[in-house]
Amino acid sequence: MKRDRILLAHGGGGALTRELIEEVIAPTLDNAVLRPLDDSAVLGINGERWAFTTDSYVVKPVEFPGGDIGRLAICGTINDLATQAARPMWLSLGLILEEGVPVALLRRVLQSIRAVSDELGVPVVTGDTKVVERGTCDQMYINTAGIGRCEAPWPVGAARARAGDAVILSGPIGLHGIAVMSRREGIAFTTSVVSDCAPLWPLVRAVLDTGAELHTLRDPTRGGVAAAVHEIARASGVGIRLWESAIPVPSEVRGACELLGLDPLTIANEGKLLVICPAQEADRVVAAMRAHPLGRGAAVVGEVLEKPKGMALLRTTIGGERVIDLPSGEDLPRIC
Amino acid sequence: MKRDRILLAHGGGGALTRELIEEVIAPTLDNAVLRPLDDSAVLGINGERWAFTTDSYVVKPVEFPGGDIGRLAICGTINDLATQAARPMWLSLGLILEEGVPVALLRRVLQSIRAVSDELGVPVVTGDTKVVERGTCDQMYINTAGIGRCEAPWPVGAARARAGDAVILSGPIGLHGIAVMSRREGIAFTTSVVSDCAPLWPLVRAVLDTGAELHTLRDPTRGGVAAAVHEIARASGVGIRLWESAIPVPSEVRGACELLGLDPLTIANEGKLLVICPAQEADRVVAAMRAHPLGRGAAVVGEVLEKPKGMALLRTTIGGERVIDLPSGEDLPRIC
Repeated sequence: MKRDRILLAHGGGGALTRELIEEVIAPTLDNAVLRPLDDSAVLGINGERWAFTTDSYVVKPVEFPGGDIGRLAICGTINDLATQAARPMWLSLGLILEEGVPVALLRRVLQSIRAVSDELGVPVVTGDTKVVERGTCDQMYINTAGIGRCEAPWPVGAARARAGDAVILSGPIGLHGIAVMSRREGIAFTTSVVSDCAPLWPLVRAVLDTGAELHTLRDPTRGGVAAAVHEIARASGVGIRLWESAIPVPSEVRGACELLGLDPLTIANEGKLLVICPAQEADRVVAAMRAHPLGRGAAVVGEVLEKPKGMALLRTTIGGERVIDLPSGEDLPRIC
Repeated sequence: MKRDRILLAHGGGGALTRELIEEVIAPTLDNAVLRPLDDSAVLGINGERWAFTTDSYVVKPVEFPGGDIGRLAICGTINDLATQAARPMWLSLGLILEEGVPVALLRRVLQSIRAVSDELGVPVVTGDTKVVERGTCDQMYINTAGIGRCEAPWPVGAARARAGDAVILSGPIGLHGIAVMSRREGIAFTTSVVSDCAPLWPLVRAVLDTGAELHTLRDPTRGGVAAAVHEIARASGVGIRLWESAIPVPSEVRGACELLGLDPLTIANEGKLLVICPAQEADRVVAAMRAHPLGRGAAVVGEVLEKPKGMALLRTTIGGERVIDLPSGEDLPRIC
């Protein structure tokens, strides 16, 4: 790695995050189960496939339109299991609290956690609480880990997209990132955008129920749809072409992106699902998604190509084509 | 809860931690698997018992004599599984890094993690990395979660100690806490004390191999032996009497405790094992522990009594008896 100190962008989910993981973290910890670097590890337990995942949450501010750090953490971990086609079964909760944080805020965050936990029937079964001095945390950071049982008849993953597949997206993009930024100190602007933060397992189960041959499931969080398709193109050794005209960008998201100088494709989502499956299966997958409240806006938004390998392209609304760059990760720190 | 803001002592592993967990966290998240509030949750998977645990680590400084935050995190999670008599199988790693932290420090911490992982054959299979701005973290915080397979023929736990049991301790106390404090900015003192931070699973497996009827296993970390016996006495509805003369306190630990005004019984250990089993089984358990490098100093250090229920007592070297109070948690912030 060229840099000798950690930059904020190393946590942004883009090119610098990839560099840190691929050059420092993954080589040191390397083993066969870790190696795919998917959202969840897949474990063999008594001949069954189980998924295991973890994420830390440092979103700023901890409460935002449509959610808070608790809802975000539980949904994020459920979604990392769901994108491995795993039914979430048990969650852990690690709290790091800043000295002086109001107990009332902690109670609200715990109630958000409980609400999602009850909605999905996934209990928090183990936890830990640490407290650090004022000025060594930003109110609270949360880690959640989760265990789920894989319910797809075959493995799904970032490396399984194939030329001829369709790329399906469950709805409008950019809502989470813009909702959080609208309340960020020093940036705050007026918008009615609300985070899409939601647990995707019921939508994934509906997609599984179609019996379609699913190749890849992904929730485009840090780095947005851009980072997700980049990662899939690279892991699968394929090209991915998205059609700009097919990707729903709410006008308020578009406006905020212009204000902030950001590309909507790079904005984090916390309740959207990307599905990659053979093109001939796409219609029934889209139909199943549209029948679910979290997938009302589902549409085919692109295609998987043989080439250019490892690259993502955007067919623009005016008919041109541009490369979708992997975002550097500098634009939206602490979005999740 | 009386206080409306979080205090450092809420993370100290003592009375205030208990208050926070019992009055705020546990009631909100309550469910049957969480309820025992043991070091690990016990999950039923296809008729087998599996253990699942999480801990966040905020130790300050991140490198100390005998270890660093990486070794501490991996050992801590392995030990929380081991004290459920569970063989550690898979670990997760969540990193929260402060902007500006040297990549070389991160590399050293990851290498410490790898070393323990290799020693025990327990891979880190999934992870996550976040970065926060300078001044919103203290170099790095680590969360580890772990999954293990329970290998005791019956459940063990804090609630299973019975009158007539012996309390066995694997060796000298206070080494981790004093080693960390000796390097703490503003406190640093000269000592040759080295943290006992170590993975206890091989020692637990050796104890299981005796076939003794184990009731409770515990690693006395935050709050030390005092908090551990308190918790066991309360959960089991028994009294516990420790014999001061039987508890090995290294002279340097004793000296540092006098300097800092601390009770060695409340100092954190990260490589010690408390075993509670019927008194008639104690000799062979102690013999098995002494035959293991991590248990050379093992001895019976106390007894479980019918009364006073929920209380821990110390028979002092001069023949008196005093109550062992649950530490408040104020004395040693950020010791793990």
